[in-house]
Amino acid sequence: MKKLLVIGIGAGDPDYLTMQAVKALNQVDVFFLMDKGPAKDALLDLRRDICRRYIVDHPYRFVEACCPERQRGDPDYASTVAELNSAKQAIFERLIEEELSDGQCGGFLVWGDPSLYDSTLRILQAILDAGRCVFEFEVIPGITSIQALAARHKVPLNSIGGSLEITTGRRLAAGQVGDAASVVVMLDAEDAYRQVNDPDLQIYWGAYVGTAGEILVAGRLGDVADDIERTRKAARQANGWIMDTYLLRK
Amino acid sequence: MKKLLVIGIGAGDPDYLTMQAVKALNQVDVFFLMDKGPAKDALLDLRRDICRRYIVDHPYRFVEACCPERQRGDPDYASTVAELNSAKQAIFERLIEEELSDGQCGGFLVWGDPSLYDSTLRILQAILDAGRCVFEFEVIPGITSIQALAARHKVPLNSIGGSLEITTGRRLAAGQVGDAASVVVMLDAEDAYRQVNDPDLQIYWGAYVGTAGEILVAGRLGDVADDIERTRKAARQANGWIMDTYLLRK
Repeated sequence: MKKLLVIGIGAGDPDYLTMQAVKALNQVDVFFLMDKGPAKDALLDLRRDICRRYIVDHPYRFVEACCPERQRGDPDYASTVAELNSAKQAIFERLIEEELSDGQCGGFLVWGDPSLYDSTLRILQAILDAGRCVFEFEVIPGITSIQALAARHKVPLNSIGGSLEITTGRRLAAGQVGDAASVVVMLDAEDAYRQVNDPDLQIYWGAYVGTAGEILVAGRLGDVADDIERTRKAARQANGWIMDTYLLRK
Repeated sequence: MKKLLVIGIGAGDPDYLTMQAVKALNQVDVFFLMDKGPAKDALLDLRRDICRRYIVDHPYRFVEACCPERQRGDPDYASTVAELNSAKQAIFERLIEEELSDGQCGGFLVWGDPSLYDSTLRILQAILDAGRCVFEFEVIPGITSIQALAARHKVPLNSIGGSLEITTGRRLAAGQVGDAASVVVMLDAEDAYRQVNDPDLQIYWGAYVGTAGEILVAGRLGDVADDIERTRKAARQANGWIMDTYLLRK
């Protein structure tokens, strides 16, 4: 039997790794690296650094796979992602088939937590459902950028007894959010906080949270939105990529 | 200056501790233990076990504080919690004042993650705002029971591009949830999933997740609700307490 470990490596700081993740790293024979886009180099370096730092005395190798990119601008987001995932599925199947022998363990190092806005679990389940490929897999949770953001700003995510909605920039911009007292926005490529009508909301924004380049801005939305937009643009230009998250609270 | 560390210890499995949490544990001179209720003994044991396991060569002591309990049954939940928190605030102030000397470090070990449904951050901020007591504090995120639940069931929390609402049993029972494709329910004392009208939802339920006593049930809500209710009741009876969480997905 082949085994796969889907390991959440947290949101940037190698100290976010859990003891469980460290134990998992030390079982992996082959790491599959699927990073893409402008942050690719930084993410690959982080993964290599984590392996160097935490793996003791267990031989391992990396296999990089060229990952298809999502067609941007298509209005049907869900179906573009589904298409992308089926392309990724073919790649994963090939990797598991060709790069792992029976009894070996493969590892996917997932930024943040594999259960949140990541497709690895969905793809592995689809491969098992298709039945062409047999393996067992385990999931190791990791600290998300949401938790890192709250910790660095030292604020609770929820109000007392209130709900927290975790959503995407796309949904916020489209007004597709409920009335939870707290909203966390991930994957915002378009400054969607600008489209929120309540200037009295508190916003807690962070980019590259938990890394040396961390930037934090907090305040009344009406007061700091311009500052965040400027900071974001400058940081994206300087680094070639940005990874940011924010919390909006009533 | 006194320093406080609010350390997320994860949701049960000592392997959920992050490297950052382990480093933080090793700086603490005095741990404040505030557990209460029927799970108190189990939670205290876990905290002591974590300290024994991870603290190397740094002397520390525990201070247990008798924590006031929330008045159950009061319909004004938010104000009962606010009252409770101001009682806790007085206790925290006394602990920081009397049990820590200048230059010393105090630690709060928070189940799960300090940013989610925990009052420690709110209380510390209120103490600082009141200005009677001076200290600095840092927050160390931890793996929540939500992440542990998703990892053990091996499912993503969100649908593709969809929102996730994290809420309480109280709000679910009152119909106060949005239309997010995924809903996670915490702190459900009343089997609120029974009040959900859509039997075709998928439910992923777990109790004592990440511990030796872990119980998982998953399936179509209409098919497994009875089973979950029975399992829950039996487990609460057998252990004297229960800590459970569930994910509902369309």
